[in-house]
Amino acid sequence: MSKNGNISSSVIKRLPRYYRFLGELEKQGVERISSRELSEKMKLTASQIRQDLNCFGGFGQQGYGYQVQSLREEIGHILGVDKAYSTILIGAGNLGKAIALHINFETRGCQLTGIFDANPRLTGETVGSLAIRHTDEIEEFCKAEHPVIAVLCIPKANTQAIADKLVGLGIRSFWNFSHYDLTIDHQGIEVENVHLGDSLLTLTYRTSHLKDSEEE
Amino acid sequence: MSKNGNISSSVIKRLPRYYRFLGELEKQGVERISSRELSEKMKLTASQIRQDLNCFGGFGQQGYGYQVQSLREEIGHILGVDKAYSTILIGAGNLGKAIALHINFETRGCQLTGIFDANPRLTGETVGSLAIRHTDEIEEFCKAEHPVIAVLCIPKANTQAIADKLVGLGIRSFWNFSHYDLTIDHQGIEVENVHLGDSLLTLTYRTSHLKDSEEE
Repeated sequence: MSKNGNISSSVIKRLPRYYRFLGELEKQGVERISSRELSEKMKLTASQIRQDLNCFGGFGQQGYGYQVQSLREEIGHILGVDKAYSTILIGAGNLGKAIALHINFETRGCQLTGIFDANPRLTGETVGSLAIRHTDEIEEFCKAEHPVIAVLCIPKANTQAIADKLVGLGIRSFWNFSHYDLTIDHQGIEVENVHLGDSLLTLTYRTSHLKDSEEE
Repeated sequence: MSKNGNISSSVIKRLPRYYRFLGELEKQGVERISSRELSEKMKLTASQIRQDLNCFGGFGQQGYGYQVQSLREEIGHILGVDKAYSTILIGAGNLGKAIALHINFETRGCQLTGIFDANPRLTGETVGSLAIRHTDEIEEFCKAEHPVIAVLCIPKANTQAIADKLVGLGIRSFWNFSHYDLTIDHQGIEVENVHLGDSLLTLTYRTSHLKDSEEE
């Protein structure tokens, strides 16, 4: 059913949100929903929703709406929530530890299998159910465990060298919290950048342009 | 110079990135750059860059390019990096602590002035230079300090009640790490949502569609 060869990145970016909203509806016991109702909840137009979901073959029935549970399952399947991609996290500072503990990797098709840090004083410290390993062990670990995704929570200055090494070891997907632009040096990899600082700065801008702000 | 009344949200989302790239160029001693060179670095088209920067009155000179330092300063000013918005953080769990320690609020026009958590066992614990306060103290704090921005690092179930309270106390801007959709209940507020789980799920999707993936 999922004809997902040529889906635009903007549709893909909306899919996790559909997945979350449908999950909430399911929890509330809602069995079906019209695109109009879904659009009100999600602040998208009903036609946008129909267009988006049509990319995957279309699940709705005219006059009936969408069957919540099966639509959610299908979107989850498209996103890959039923995968278990072996995932390693590099950089067990405050942010790395928080990501390791706060994010539910399993429900997103990932399995956190290793945490690494260059600081030998952290080696052996446990984060959740994993003990931090020294970054010197990455190569051996990758050759044995074949992780697929790497979460980078390291300072920008160290990112290029670590990324080169990881690409050499077969990692193709990066969840990148460092501010280094990985795609500069590598082709054929997938990078999801998280720029928390940019996100805050966008809010600062919007705060200074609030209607009742002193500057408007 | 900044005629920034009607700037589209997609341009605004790109501004922090321009600001970062120009900062890097400045550090490298680059004094001026053409839109073509900037476009190669930023993986945008040169015409996109010219269009974006024209929104603010246009800084480039034909045949000369952009003056890096003054363009960066102007974008910084537009974004509000020279503000010092009093900012409070609610929820001093792993993620909240990591945000408090990892993010440089000052360089983004914000000043972290208070950290609150409902867990009395955390009260008094220091995070950076701030001691965690109990959430019961929020009202008194807001009346005295008039914070403008709130960072929400609390579980979804608690978000609505806390947000209602904060809006009542005058907070209009939220950096929202909880998965609760704040705009459902409140008008006239600015919310910057950070959905880390959605970001990871997008990467899972792209991982399963990598060219050399077993499933293609």
